[in-house]
Amino acid sequence: MLTLALESSAKAASAAVFEGDKMLAFAIQNAGMTHSRTLLPMAEGLVKGLDKTMTDIGLVAVSHGPGSFTGLRIGLAEAKGLCWALQIPAVGVSTLEAMAWGGPVLDGQMLCCCMDARRGQVYNALFTVEGGEPVRLTPDRAISIPELESELVARQEPWILLGDGAELCYNTIDRSQVSLFIAPEPLRLQNARGVGMAARGKETVTADGLLPVYLRLSQAERARLAKLEQ
Amino acid sequence: MLTLALESSAKAASAAVFEGDKMLAFAIQNAGMTHSRTLLPMAEGLVKGLDKTMTDIGLVAVSHGPGSFTGLRIGLAEAKGLCWALQIPAVGVSTLEAMAWGGPVLDGQMLCCCMDARRGQVYNALFTVEGGEPVRLTPDRAISIPELESELVARQEPWILLGDGAELCYNTIDRSQVSLFIAPEPLRLQNARGVGMAARGKETVTADGLLPVYLRLSQAERARLAKLEQ
Repeated sequence: MLTLALESSAKAASAAVFEGDKMLAFAIQNAGMTHSRTLLPMAEGLVKGLDKTMTDIGLVAVSHGPGSFTGLRIGLAEAKGLCWALQIPAVGVSTLEAMAWGGPVLDGQMLCCCMDARRGQVYNALFTVEGGEPVRLTPDRAISIPELESELVARQEPWILLGDGAELCYNTIDRSQVSLFIAPEPLRLQNARGVGMAARGKETVTADGLLPVYLRLSQAERARLAKLEQ
Repeated sequence: MLTLALESSAKAASAAVFEGDKMLAFAIQNAGMTHSRTLLPMAEGLVKGLDKTMTDIGLVAVSHGPGSFTGLRIGLAEAKGLCWALQIPAVGVSTLEAMAWGGPVLDGQMLCCCMDARRGQVYNALFTVEGGEPVRLTPDRAISIPELESELVARQEPWILLGDGAELCYNTIDRSQVSLFIAPEPLRLQNARGVGMAARGKETVTADGLLPVYLRLSQAERARLAKLEQ
């Protein structure tokens, strides 16, 4: 039984195929094309390349957020469609947790997973590494960069920055107060390898139970609320 | 103009498409299928996924060895075929140098690139990282593990092990004498991303100038020599 992992929470889209713990195939595309055109053909290409068919997939893992609203909707919609058609279960995983699974190197390392959430905020969660696996130190949250900076400084550790917000944090946070390192690209950007790894052992849901976790209201919802308040 | 990078020197096969310095797409397959079936379809899938055709490729980069004789022949034959058909140049890069380009993280880090060459040897080269780029400390060579161990110990540095021989070295070398770290998988295994990065700025050749660098005689050649000597 194969697990198909999908990641489309940011600019790059990626897919991976696992058999148990082993990743058999992986692809990533980062050319700015919409995920609705690239994600599913990429997944199909991987499955076909393994001499398998989509009916060999027994589980779909997908990053459910936080992240780009449109990106998440595409990934979740494709995961739901596959699960519904194939009558198989799904696992939604935190984009930030998937990032941590794709990143850790050595026990004791401190991981700061961050995505640019605009409006002066980042989507963020902090992890450490124990026994080669990320251990969560904070929940997923939308947080201002100064608030994040205070937390990082208070913990008096060197931090490895992961995610598409890594450079933003690296360039904004006062590095005379805290040691920051940017992980190299194949580890840094959220990708389907991390999604597949983070999904292991997690509770599965049916297609309709797969829901986005935006952490913030969408622009349209914020505008509507502001209007109602007037 | 796109650069297509191919890597098939070991068990995994991978392809990547670059536009200048930017990697647009990447795929890897590691399910034990022969590269002659997987490598070219993977490359075509990447190009197609970018809404491009093979005629948009202006350069083919390929790892020319050391590595699996059969694997190298498949990669080089496909690269030659593409270059000949499209009338475009090629760049052959050292498998070990490509590994180093895929691996470095921070300036000053010491990289030990190694592939299991059987018969008690590894294919190996040592690099350090300066200005974010690997700098060669030794030529590519086939070397016994005890010889490699002496060199690593003599340099009194902690080493990051890269390549499909990383675990072999980690488990064989006396780690009370030298600090060894195994790089995480996406950085560890030789892959087409490293090939594309290592190829930048290198002199190009025409299809017929692309040659394998085995570093050792093949089993058949060794058997023939032994017979002639008798």
